[in-house]
Amino acid sequence: MPYRAPVSDYEFLLRHVVGYDRVSGTERFAEADADVASAILTEAGKMCEEIMAPLQRNGDLTPARLENGVVRTSPGFAEGWKAIAEGGWIGMSAPEAYGGMGLPMTLTTSVNEMMSAACLSLQLAPLMSQGQLEALEHHASDQLKELFMPKLISGEWSGTMNLTEPQAGSDVGALSSKAEPKGDGTYAISGQKIYISWGDNDFADNVCHLVLARLPDGVPGTKGISLFLVPKYLPREDGTPGEANSLKVVSLEHKMGLHGSPTCVMQYDGATGWLVGAEHGGMAAMFTMMNNARLGVGGQGVGAGEGAYQHALAYATERKQGRTPKGDSGTIADHADVRRMLTAMKGDLFAARAIMLACAVAIDMSTATGAPEWKARAALLTPIAKAFGTDVGIDVAQMGVQVHGGMGFIEETGAAQYYRDVRVTAIYEGTNGIQAMDLVGRKMMDGGEAAGALMDEIEAAAEAARATHPALAEAVWQATETLRETTEWLVGQDMQDRFAGAVPYLRAFARVLGAHFHLSAAVAEPGGPRAALAAFYIQRLLPEHAGLLTQVHVGAEGLYDLSLDDLVA
Amino acid sequence: MPYRAPVSDYEFLLRHVVGYDRVSGTERFAEADADVASAILTEAGKMCEEIMAPLQRNGDLTPARLENGVVRTSPGFAEGWKAIAEGGWIGMSAPEAYGGMGLPMTLTTSVNEMMSAACLSLQLAPLMSQGQLEALEHHASDQLKELFMPKLISGEWSGTMNLTEPQAGSDVGALSSKAEPKGDGTYAISGQKIYISWGDNDFADNVCHLVLARLPDGVPGTKGISLFLVPKYLPREDGTPGEANSLKVVSLEHKMGLHGSPTCVMQYDGATGWLVGAEHGGMAAMFTMMNNARLGVGGQGVGAGEGAYQHALAYATERKQGRTPKGDSGTIADHADVRRMLTAMKGDLFAARAIMLACAVAIDMSTATGAPEWKARAALLTPIAKAFGTDVGIDVAQMGVQVHGGMGFIEETGAAQYYRDVRVTAIYEGTNGIQAMDLVGRKMMDGGEAAGALMDEIEAAAEAARATHPALAEAVWQATETLRETTEWLVGQDMQDRFAGAVPYLRAFARVLGAHFHLSAAVAEPGGPRAALAAFYIQRLLPEHAGLLTQVHVGAEGLYDLSLDDLVA
Repeated sequence: MPYRAPVSDYEFLLRHVVGYDRVSGTERFAEADADVASAILTEAGKMCEEIMAPLQRNGDLTPARLENGVVRTSPGFAEGWKAIAEGGWIGMSAPEAYGGMGLPMTLTTSVNEMMSAACLSLQLAPLMSQGQLEALEHHASDQLKELFMPKLISGEWSGTMNLTEPQAGSDVGALSSKAEPKGDGTYAISGQKIYISWGDNDFADNVCHLVLARLPDGVPGTKGISLFLVPKYLPREDGTPGEANSLKVVSLEHKMGLHGSPTCVMQYDGATGWLVGAEHGGMAAMFTMMNNARLGVGGQGVGAGEGAYQHALAYATERKQGRTPKGDSGTIADHADVRRMLTAMKGDLFAARAIMLACAVAIDMSTATGAPEWKARAALLTPIAKAFGTDVGIDVAQMGVQVHGGMGFIEETGAAQYYRDVRVTAIYEGTNGIQAMDLVGRKMMDGGEAAGALMDEIEAAAEAARATHPALAEAVWQATETLRETTEWLVGQDMQDRFAGAVPYLRAFARVLGAHFHLSAAVAEPGGPRAALAAFYIQRLLPEHAGLLTQVHVGAEGLYDLSLDDLVA
Repeated sequence: MPYRAPVSDYEFLLRHVVGYDRVSGTERFAEADADVASAILTEAGKMCEEIMAPLQRNGDLTPARLENGVVRTSPGFAEGWKAIAEGGWIGMSAPEAYGGMGLPMTLTTSVNEMMSAACLSLQLAPLMSQGQLEALEHHASDQLKELFMPKLISGEWSGTMNLTEPQAGSDVGALSSKAEPKGDGTYAISGQKIYISWGDNDFADNVCHLVLARLPDGVPGTKGISLFLVPKYLPREDGTPGEANSLKVVSLEHKMGLHGSPTCVMQYDGATGWLVGAEHGGMAAMFTMMNNARLGVGGQGVGAGEGAYQHALAYATERKQGRTPKGDSGTIADHADVRRMLTAMKGDLFAARAIMLACAVAIDMSTATGAPEWKARAALLTPIAKAFGTDVGIDVAQMGVQVHGGMGFIEETGAAQYYRDVRVTAIYEGTNGIQAMDLVGRKMMDGGEAAGALMDEIEAAAEAARATHPALAEAVWQATETLRETTEWLVGQDMQDRFAGAVPYLRAFARVLGAHFHLSAAVAEPGGPRAALAAFYIQRLLPEHAGLLTQVHVGAEGLYDLSLDDLVA
């Protein structure tokens, strides 16, 4: 089933739902008006449909492999990378001074989602470069920027992130990689890093690693960590790759999915690196890179979900089976339960995509205006966009398998690949549990102010929507009130009580946000299919929020009444 | 992580939760008292731990393969099958007259679940034989019974079910396989069947296929279908396998999981078969076989979930990471969100296992007493046991991956295998959507009488529990009332409205049932870990029912407002 880029969905969302006009109304992004956005999305969609989508199965059937220490990528991936690079899609939001397009993150996020839908394992490569570019832009010296950013933007070189070590996963502060100053302004980096996505490839001339390590005088924990740029080949004076650095790929992981993306164990043995940001300031730089990547991974979830949805829809509207009491296509798509699944998939994807774009708009507004309320909005929405986007991707892929029936379990149909591939998105770049803890912890340090401001907006929009959609507006307003009450309760609790309900809280928040965006869509196009989808979502999917918030209110009460021994018994 | 059979959980459930004493109180099952049950469960548990569990990874790493038309099974599977057969575990509930043990289905169901947890792909083989034995016992001639049942019970021969054809999946009535009377009392069977689990193997001397086909005078649809027993080798007079029959394995499917179980495409070219049951009475015989298999597949979900849970728990209680604000193990199991996941897994498994056993008790009581209310209870609980058991298995395996973090996506840890393997259980033996339609359709033909009787029992138990657990009892009572109101509404709707909410209705029903059984456990052991688990389930997981039932009440309203074209756009 060929992938079809949902360009018109993006256009509608930008115009009517997430207020992209505010972004293009700023001086910073004045050139990226609605017409430019449409042209860009159309062009990117074409590349995704024609070049990337045909590579999706290649990655699964012919995984990346390690050959004499060098990664050999899946068939066609080199050409795919070249197309992404030449289209300018890597450096869409990177500064124009270094060859980027300086476009809003809203557009980059949209294009990233389309690329994820077309070929998730390949799309992870430019996503890594983008994270690196973001970190370099904000934290590297001008010299480093000039040397590396143009190459990363052009796709001649690629970038990676090296955070995790065997004993330091979610707890980054426990890392043991070391950096020694060499006296010439560079550092010698040593240690082992795991789960390095696209740690090597055979299509870029150089692979640039951002590596977290500890200087000799670095204190234990996150405050003693510094960030280094460590390229596979040391650049010569003229900027071309020179001598090989002291680093290597030790092995590739054998994963459940995403076989086209080489997940490397990396070994650094006194490799030469450059400091990015201040000494012991690695966490700040890492968060720049990770916030970008978290939104990007949320988009991967939405994209993979979109691919799975289109795949299932195509199957359901072709497969004839049984009598269908309603509808007249004679296919299984007319069966009530299949129709319910398909519509739920579409409704969830719309909600997750809107949340993701609203987050990107907030980032752009923060960049363009420097206003702290936009910064806070972006910070609030990032964990929701990441966790809900990837949960939706997994749920949709799971329903996609179910829609296929027995064929869903057979690899040849491709439904299973979406299910296997997308599963990791709820884990990497901070598990969804970590995202939820971030939401109820760090992101509520303001006493719930940013969340309250967002709920004010949602309720005001619901009030306005009462004129045309009274029942739907009332449901959204009520749900928001319940969320508000829970939020006010939550910020008064200690961290343990917050963490115990963090995951259900995040999901309930996302449900309410999704309902708000659906309602906006219904208001923009009353009586049409978007309004019908909004009604479906608000009537059938939004009610989940109540049970989730009931859970939140239990806090940590009784959570440890079963001891670990009791759990075993 | 070695699997540990949860024998004491079974003993507790049988004694205090699902009322096994009623089964052993009947004349039919008088010999299978609690002590006998314990001895059997202990013995089976040992076999599962020592012999089957070590085979689990073999099936995944070295899948069954087709070699010159013959299936070669995974390493150790032949020895595993032998152990299952010699332990008498295939024919546990089969009649003693043919070499079975005549034990209650409640015990067979328990043992099946343990075998599923230990090695799902191998356990599917005896499950197929059991379904065939059930069909033969109730529908075959004495001659056929005498010829085939002892061999199937001893495990010398194995059995399969051949229902599905490429154009006839959930809609069995659309099948096109043909049967021609040969004039000697046998029939010539021709056609192709797909998704035939364990369609061949290299450890049984004969493979006996139960095949649905249409006689020349069979009307179109399900009413013209007959069932035939078609062995791989035609038995000689003395009962030994003789001449090869005209059937073959065409190919094996390449599946997402369950690699140890060969899923065959079977071709019958005028193969000799014997009629089982009446001509054109194939559906009745098939339902006998399928009801048994549906409960069995529900048990597969629970079993695979148990395996995944134990696996995740072992990882979580070993893995050290980050500061844990509460608990003192220093492992990730002390983190609130991980503890929440682990406890939810255990709570869901308890609920699903109790529902499965309650269904088995109803089957046994129906067999032993012939009472129509027990028959109705079994019929009501079968789709819930199948769908909820497998949904829980999938949810638990999914959380198991999440608990592992990055390691969950790496195949070597085994967490991913549970996730891949268990996925099919929501699809085969009738998709979970079909189960839900069965519940709100056929199983509510009585106007909701059987459901109402069960809810009366739940409310009476909740009333009695108020003395010791007032808050939990009230929550269960209230939830049951909400379920009752929805049920009464539901039976007044047309089928389309019922089907639109069938899946959420089934899940809400299971949530309430699970809460009821947890409450019974709390009453039986107040103040202990079972009561703590009950509180967790009732406070945090039961509330989901409300949102689900809200969905049910929407019926089919607006479900088709989005046309198929709208879904594509």
